[in-house]
Amino acid sequence: SSSSGEGVDRVKTLLQLCVDRYYVSPGQSNTELFQRGMSCCYGPLGMELRRNLLQQWWLSVTGPTQQVFGINTLSSSKDTATDGLRFVESEHLKPILEQQELSKEQLVQKIQTLIQRSPSLRTGFLQGALEQFVPSLELVNRKLPFGLAETGLCFQPRDGSGCPAEVTQTSLVWFCPPRTSSQWLDHWSRQRLKWWRQFALSPSEFSSSDVPEQELEESATRGARILYSFPWGQEPLETLWSRGSTELLQTHKGVRTKLQCRDGRKSIPHVISVTGNMDRGVMAFLSNSLQQLKKEESKQKMLQRKVLKLHPVLAPVKVALDIGRGTTVELRQVCEGLLQEFMEAKISTWPGYLETKPTSMEQLNTKYDEMGVLFTVVISENTLESGLLQVRSRDTTIKETKHISEIKNFLSRYISAADNI
Amino acid sequence: SSSSGEGVDRVKTLLQLCVDRYYVSPGQSNTELFQRGMSCCYGPLGMELRRNLLQQWWLSVTGPTQQVFGINTLSSSKDTATDGLRFVESEHLKPILEQQELSKEQLVQKIQTLIQRSPSLRTGFLQGALEQFVPSLELVNRKLPFGLAETGLCFQPRDGSGCPAEVTQTSLVWFCPPRTSSQWLDHWSRQRLKWWRQFALSPSEFSSSDVPEQELEESATRGARILYSFPWGQEPLETLWSRGSTELLQTHKGVRTKLQCRDGRKSIPHVISVTGNMDRGVMAFLSNSLQQLKKEESKQKMLQRKVLKLHPVLAPVKVALDIGRGTTVELRQVCEGLLQEFMEAKISTWPGYLETKPTSMEQLNTKYDEMGVLFTVVISENTLESGLLQVRSRDTTIKETKHISEIKNFLSRYISAADNI
Repeated sequence: SSSSGEGVDRVKTLLQLCVDRYYVSPGQSNTELFQRGMSCCYGPLGMELRRNLLQQWWLSVTGPTQQVFGINTLSSSKDTATDGLRFVESEHLKPILEQQELSKEQLVQKIQTLIQRSPSLRTGFLQGALEQFVPSLELVNRKLPFGLAETGLCFQPRDGSGCPAEVTQTSLVWFCPPRTSSQWLDHWSRQRLKWWRQFALSPSEFSSSDVPEQELEESATRGARILYSFPWGQEPLETLWSRGSTELLQTHKGVRTKLQCRDGRKSIPHVISVTGNMDRGVMAFLSNSLQQLKKEESKQKMLQRKVLKLHPVLAPVKVALDIGRGTTVELRQVCEGLLQEFMEAKISTWPGYLETKPTSMEQLNTKYDEMGVLFTVVISENTLESGLLQVRSRDTTIKETKHISEIKNFLSRYISAADNI
Repeated sequence: SSSSGEGVDRVKTLLQLCVDRYYVSPGQSNTELFQRGMSCCYGPLGMELRRNLLQQWWLSVTGPTQQVFGINTLSSSKDTATDGLRFVESEHLKPILEQQELSKEQLVQKIQTLIQRSPSLRTGFLQGALEQFVPSLELVNRKLPFGLAETGLCFQPRDGSGCPAEVTQTSLVWFCPPRTSSQWLDHWSRQRLKWWRQFALSPSEFSSSDVPEQELEESATRGARILYSFPWGQEPLETLWSRGSTELLQTHKGVRTKLQCRDGRKSIPHVISVTGNMDRGVMAFLSNSLQQLKKEESKQKMLQRKVLKLHPVLAPVKVALDIGRGTTVELRQVCEGLLQEFMEAKISTWPGYLETKPTSMEQLNTKYDEMGVLFTVVISENTLESGLLQVRSRDTTIKETKHISEIKNFLSRYISAADNI
């Protein structure tokens, strides 16, 4: 159909833009990983976008209204009971294979022992958080509810492509009184959906839905998903499970006294897990923010202006610094002063003035719009004379004249206003 | 000797404090990992300290005066040429072992093929950065010098303990003209040492030294190390190598035209690698900042006051909020308002007022000093009447009275002043 054709075109355009504009490293297998919601080689802008996204996730989850503590667990475990991706180091296999005197049975036996003693790579953060539950109880004086948060790499068994897939996961494991676990699942579903939509250009492309009973994980009594509508269909960004207390008890070998909390009665907490895929989150926001607008001034056939309208908080580059007409050496000095000023105010800046390839202003604007740069500041001869410079907005394309002394505060105010919505 | 006995005591005290005060999760094998400079299970405070340290490293390396871009590469690779930690998934081994009809030779053959096709886990970021060199050239218009930065988990072959060791590494790979590579190594050694000392209570415990010729890595012509003097001896925190262009050429199969840069002549850049271990960095700063002071007021034998004098920028908790005498409900409301205000100003706050165990002010001060909390704010009946509250400083132990309306700005100013030194 024509609409799925459009979808395919849109995906192609997005992937090409991501490669051209330093979000994703080139190479077909790399862009395939990216499209499948796996961790891939990111360029500087993609890497910064993911940083910003993780930072916002962290702030929202560990925010002031809830008791959530960050932890760090190991990505590999020698605990043979854990449900990870068990692996054998080739350096340990080789000497066994070289033992000429072994019979086939002895060889098989030795390798099986090696497998049993081999560590596993985590596929998620749940197990680590369950293990950290007991040491964390002291932090909260055994009072429910509270949560443990972690972000980082998790691994999935390798598929046809030959590599184990890596995913940048976010995890909140929430411990709550059994009688309110269902409300807490609802609370976190609402809270998470609100969070995703807060940064969206088209919020309706983010949605949530309950997991149908037949798709429930073994230990879960209820589940919910936050979904994003990609051109090729819906994919989950975050998954929430209401897991009861079975896994927590298993992890601590059923010693109930260690696990009991104070919530009016002495109860074993129920566990809500909230697991996100931030690599897919990066792609969702890139897909969500790409606007293709017909250029009005264009006389040729259907020239399009592509703009990555990323939310100001997520945009990896807030401002680009460029030079217009004038003596390059002097203008560069002004740029360097401004760059320093912006960096001190933690405004992420693209030093376009270092570029030595000649480009027209129009080409620059096209490039920065596709990079999602919020503002372009142009320093020219005029700046040296009067202190005035040009500021162009990505979203309005309007150019304003401002004094050099007010530009930093203007940018800071714009970004922090967007931050507090 | 007595001084080494003191060292052992100091290490014991430090490790116990780290476990008690939520820096490191309990368990002997975990604290051993920590002491060996490996990634371990961190508690909320350790996790936040490492975040702060990584954040500062990132700001210092990608700062305004140098062209450094962040990238993200994969932690596993199916490239059989790379020098990683090759591993075989047990799920792929098992079916081979179960094939009854195979002879021993066939079995060995099959497993060897499996090993050859198996992916490897990275032991460092160098290879990834060398691969990203060509796509990055466009960013800098083929102009030297520039750098690629990455931080995250790397793996080391497992030792006796059975688990592959994980390390949180920082990596700057710097590409520069061959004729200035030696100056750049010196530049980065100086810059890195300065950075470590900037956050130190006793800067002299951080030092740098050239790597003796017999310890040079194969590809390196020169090397330098940033060292920290732990009670048990010196350990490297960051290692710098001047590596020439051999590995870069190998990675790109010797295609010189792809690699040539503009620096007056057409040259293949030399590579400087700067690799840090931020888990050991966390331990270095904890060790460096622990002060044990004799309590003056104490009548008993040698009571010591332990203070973790972490640099304000690194301290995981900037302020603790507690309540003194008064009606708990009303005081808590004041605390919640302040907490909200602090969080919006991104001041990391410990909500001590939620604690329901009765504790004396002295016990609280002891606890917060050991946690390294910069300030303790106490809200009391007086606050409700006059708006005045008590602020205690970790470093001076002096209690000041301040008005509730000025406390946020006081804290913000204190932290940002420390940030700009």
